[in-house]
Amino acid sequence: MIAEGVLVVQRMLASRFTPRAMLGTDRRLSELAADLAGVDVPYYRASAEVMAEAIGFHLNRGVLAAAPRPAELTVAEVLAGARTVAVLEGVNDHENLGSIFRNAAGLDVDAVLFGTGCADPLYRRAVRVSMGHALLVPYAWAPSWPGELNTLRDNGFRVLAMTPNPAAATLAEAMSGLADDKVAILVGAEGPGLTEHTMRAADVRVRIPMTRGTDSLNVATAAALAFYERARVS
Amino acid sequence: MIAEGVLVVQRMLASRFTPRAMLGTDRRLSELAADLAGVDVPYYRASAEVMAEAIGFHLNRGVLAAAPRPAELTVAEVLAGARTVAVLEGVNDHENLGSIFRNAAGLDVDAVLFGTGCADPLYRRAVRVSMGHALLVPYAWAPSWPGELNTLRDNGFRVLAMTPNPAAATLAEAMSGLADDKVAILVGAEGPGLTEHTMRAADVRVRIPMTRGTDSLNVATAAALAFYERARVS
Repeated sequence: MIAEGVLVVQRMLASRFTPRAMLGTDRRLSELAADLAGVDVPYYRASAEVMAEAIGFHLNRGVLAAAPRPAELTVAEVLAGARTVAVLEGVNDHENLGSIFRNAAGLDVDAVLFGTGCADPLYRRAVRVSMGHALLVPYAWAPSWPGELNTLRDNGFRVLAMTPNPAAATLAEAMSGLADDKVAILVGAEGPGLTEHTMRAADVRVRIPMTRGTDSLNVATAAALAFYERARVS
Repeated sequence: MIAEGVLVVQRMLASRFTPRAMLGTDRRLSELAADLAGVDVPYYRASAEVMAEAIGFHLNRGVLAAAPRPAELTVAEVLAGARTVAVLEGVNDHENLGSIFRNAAGLDVDAVLFGTGCADPLYRRAVRVSMGHALLVPYAWAPSWPGELNTLRDNGFRVLAMTPNPAAATLAEAMSGLADDKVAILVGAEGPGLTEHTMRAADVRVRIPMTRGTDSLNVATAAALAFYERARVS
């Protein structure tokens, strides 16, 4: 996988991902000098023009790091010590996925769990939009779905499914009663939302109070509001 | 300006924007039949292929409406009756701008005011990302900046400036004391944030409680959290 730009490369160097090689302009590699001290990775200097020619398009972030994919973490590994996790179903847009990782990192979510139909969090665009947090926030793929929600419950999590349904509890109502509990926040793709099957496997249905007549928010924004509310009351 | 797709065209028809002409496939124009009843606008049917050729790229939303830009609303017009307004400075990214309109519509913000350096909310991409709410949520351009913040104050608004500064009040602290007040939420561009000059012209500085070591959130996400908190407590 590929990290682009000084900030994302710095986050890669701080993560469990180990770069195999780097390519960058003088300027960007200089900005990384302190981060690269003691790091055993070959790096190649090139002009922006040579980089653009080698890559096939102009890269204005000026530095790339390539890393092999490490072994995937297990669900047990990412749940260990976690108090709040985000659980995604059908989030197949790389930009939304990246935003969710960025929001998770900023709003105190400990891990991300993937159900079916999610895009690859290590895709270049997802990593870039996440500001590198896709490399730092631990994530795992659920081996069964939605059966894995039982694993969450077995680990003491209360599973909250987000829905636009006006009959659901508001985020504030739901979260305030769970301040001392471990919480899993389940979000589905924009448009279809969570499948009914998954919705039924959750403990509580929660909604964002919305102005009458509007449709749903972007999925990463909706997730951010849930993360915020969770952090606010716990 | 151009509205793309059935949903956005429907919102245009419900807005102060009056389409001059429409172009669409049979299927999409049929979906709009009820909305178009009694609307005096010429519409042209074409195949997706002919549309792609006329437009220059493949348009998978299948319907376009073109409208002349109506006269801009004044600040006085958009503030009349408003309880919560978003005020933007330097938000020059069309996607962020569109997201802010979508979030404003969903989270009970009455109007948007533009300071300096903002992008055009009627740009095609901004309108599309806003889901058409850029045509429905009233907005105005501040004739002087940041002097216009005084107009907000003269109209009884408390002006809250968002900042990552840890010394600022949290959103929850700031908003809970203002439930009965009119509130203006001031956000700056991602990266630089609000200028110091503008920050000094605000009444209160507010922050999102963030996980230590993370940088800021996306500007539209940060705005959504402020809108949410405002709606929650007022």
